[in-house]
Amino acid sequence: MTRHLYGRGLLPEVPSWLKAELSGRGGFLLSSSPVLALHGQRVAQHLRAVLRLEVLELPDGEAAKRLSVLEQTAEALILRGAERGSVLFALGGGTVSDLVGFLAAVLFRGISWVALPTTLLAQLDAAVGGKTGVDLGVLKNALGAFHPPIAVLGETEWLTTLPSSELRSGLVEAVKTAAVLDAALFEELKRRWVRLLQRDLEELSWLSAKVAQAKAALVATDFEDRGPRALLNFGHTLGHALEAVTGYSVSHGDAVAHGMRFVASLALPRGADGKFWAELLGLLERLGVPKLPPVSEQKLLAAIGRDKKTQKAKTGWVIPFRPGEAQWGVEVPDSELRESLRRFLSDGTGS
Amino acid sequence: MTRHLYGRGLLPEVPSWLKAELSGRGGFLLSSSPVLALHGQRVAQHLRAVLRLEVLELPDGEAAKRLSVLEQTAEALILRGAERGSVLFALGGGTVSDLVGFLAAVLFRGISWVALPTTLLAQLDAAVGGKTGVDLGVLKNALGAFHPPIAVLGETEWLTTLPSSELRSGLVEAVKTAAVLDAALFEELKRRWVRLLQRDLEELSWLSAKVAQAKAALVATDFEDRGPRALLNFGHTLGHALEAVTGYSVSHGDAVAHGMRFVASLALPRGADGKFWAELLGLLERLGVPKLPPVSEQKLLAAIGRDKKTQKAKTGWVIPFRPGEAQWGVEVPDSELRESLRRFLSDGTGS
Repeated sequence: MTRHLYGRGLLPEVPSWLKAELSGRGGFLLSSSPVLALHGQRVAQHLRAVLRLEVLELPDGEAAKRLSVLEQTAEALILRGAERGSVLFALGGGTVSDLVGFLAAVLFRGISWVALPTTLLAQLDAAVGGKTGVDLGVLKNALGAFHPPIAVLGETEWLTTLPSSELRSGLVEAVKTAAVLDAALFEELKRRWVRLLQRDLEELSWLSAKVAQAKAALVATDFEDRGPRALLNFGHTLGHALEAVTGYSVSHGDAVAHGMRFVASLALPRGADGKFWAELLGLLERLGVPKLPPVSEQKLLAAIGRDKKTQKAKTGWVIPFRPGEAQWGVEVPDSELRESLRRFLSDGTGS
Repeated sequence: MTRHLYGRGLLPEVPSWLKAELSGRGGFLLSSSPVLALHGQRVAQHLRAVLRLEVLELPDGEAAKRLSVLEQTAEALILRGAERGSVLFALGGGTVSDLVGFLAAVLFRGISWVALPTTLLAQLDAAVGGKTGVDLGVLKNALGAFHPPIAVLGETEWLTTLPSSELRSGLVEAVKTAAVLDAALFEELKRRWVRLLQRDLEELSWLSAKVAQAKAALVATDFEDRGPRALLNFGHTLGHALEAVTGYSVSHGDAVAHGMRFVASLALPRGADGKFWAELLGLLERLGVPKLPPVSEQKLLAAIGRDKKTQKAKTGWVIPFRPGEAQWGVEVPDSELRESLRRFLSDGTGS
């Protein structure tokens, strides 16, 4: 079971249960050069109070999520004395936790790791639920494992240096999670939205903890993603396709935001609550998601087909009808999908 | 739970439970060129009676157990339409099942696979217990997963074309398993040894089923290899070191046979049953294991240290005292180990 901790000034006081778990083991802190420059020294210092630690630098950005990087990192770890009792610490955003978590899943057939998520998105989403993996040239996240960290330590201070596009990505996933899982959380989001957009650290700390908790509760019912965990795919069916056809020039968060907006056109004719959808679109609008670049409807349709096949066979669309009440696996006729997509793309592509 | 089936003429009558499991799915048969030449056509024909099937060729030998091969194979599978419901079939020896099993473990975070082991060693050992993986330059089996196949189909006819060194490797692991786990099986082995050495197919079929059953029962108590599963490491502590220092010119089976012989010098001074050990050494002797090439005692000691650290932290030596009764985690003082090894190496290195 993963323990999740969020707050300000978290690391100086590594909790005693985690100290006991780590004591006497060898640790490796893995992170990219920009994140190490910002936080590496302090984090290493706090961890060294608990265990032996070496620091390894990873390539920056999505380029790190490759098998070749995993292979080189594994060899470096072994040469530095890694063994079955070692613990990996993944300091960074979702890319780092995806790579390091997958490395921990397969090194010596599985060792322990701790997630130290430095982005809002990683704190409330990527580090929660145990999904890890790398990309292939032909498909993102094609190879991976379900291998949860023993702990997620989300230090709120790290969010002060976050680029605004990264803040937005986290807020997009927060809206998504609340919309499909938790009506009370959706209400709270509306109330706190302005302060969250202003990067109020107390509010962001509250948000990470709440959204991670909601997601973790769902994941516990469907760890291997064969059923209701598909609810978290809200906005992702079109979102993944938008990322793919734009060559990933649109960020994941922005693509999902557009993906959620699009679902309105499927939800409302099926009887979804109009007030709820107006509120949801209102929250997204205030995020300032950039408009989409021009995209081909045909390519989008093809990419949607591929995504459904490889990632989520037969799960269909996720449609929220009321706050915290959504259906997954909704099949949408091709003709309706085509028509809705045409309207969506011609209808101005901004939020 | 893996279902194990062994026998002659197994494939034409794929059992109905497996047919039901496979029906409607897409299958991929993965194997090396020499094995495909021997068995590919017939196997593909029988499987095509049950599901859609494509055939992919893998590099031959230990060279296949690399991340780069896994990556290329994964990309080829995705381009040919593999998805979460696909099933991989691993036709070949332990190298093929290690690679394909690991690929199945990580492709789309885990899909189903079926082991079709064509060597005796793979039938009674490699395909049993769920261990899969690839090598790194710095360490064999450094990356992997526990991911058992849904079924092991061990066709005895495949053993007729097996090189004699491969037959010997299987018999070595059979002796090992019986010695540490199963007194009744050890008795049976003695009785049937001549017919097994003569490659009697009925006897080999019996052997695969019995040894796989004994191993599977142990594995069920310790799936992730944190405790008593270390018993299966009998003969492997020195065996792995012998493989490493000879640059893998000594086969795994022969190295383990020498490793078991060596353990006699640790077992007898600790009160092990002399009659049992004489019988065990007698069985090994009749296998005709080639003598060891000259090896450096220093390098062996260093390799033993490395192996214990990375593979089996703190598990120490496995020492059988009576048939089916062994201890694992026995610590041997360095001075005794050095002295025993010196005698073993100077004392003629053949069995």
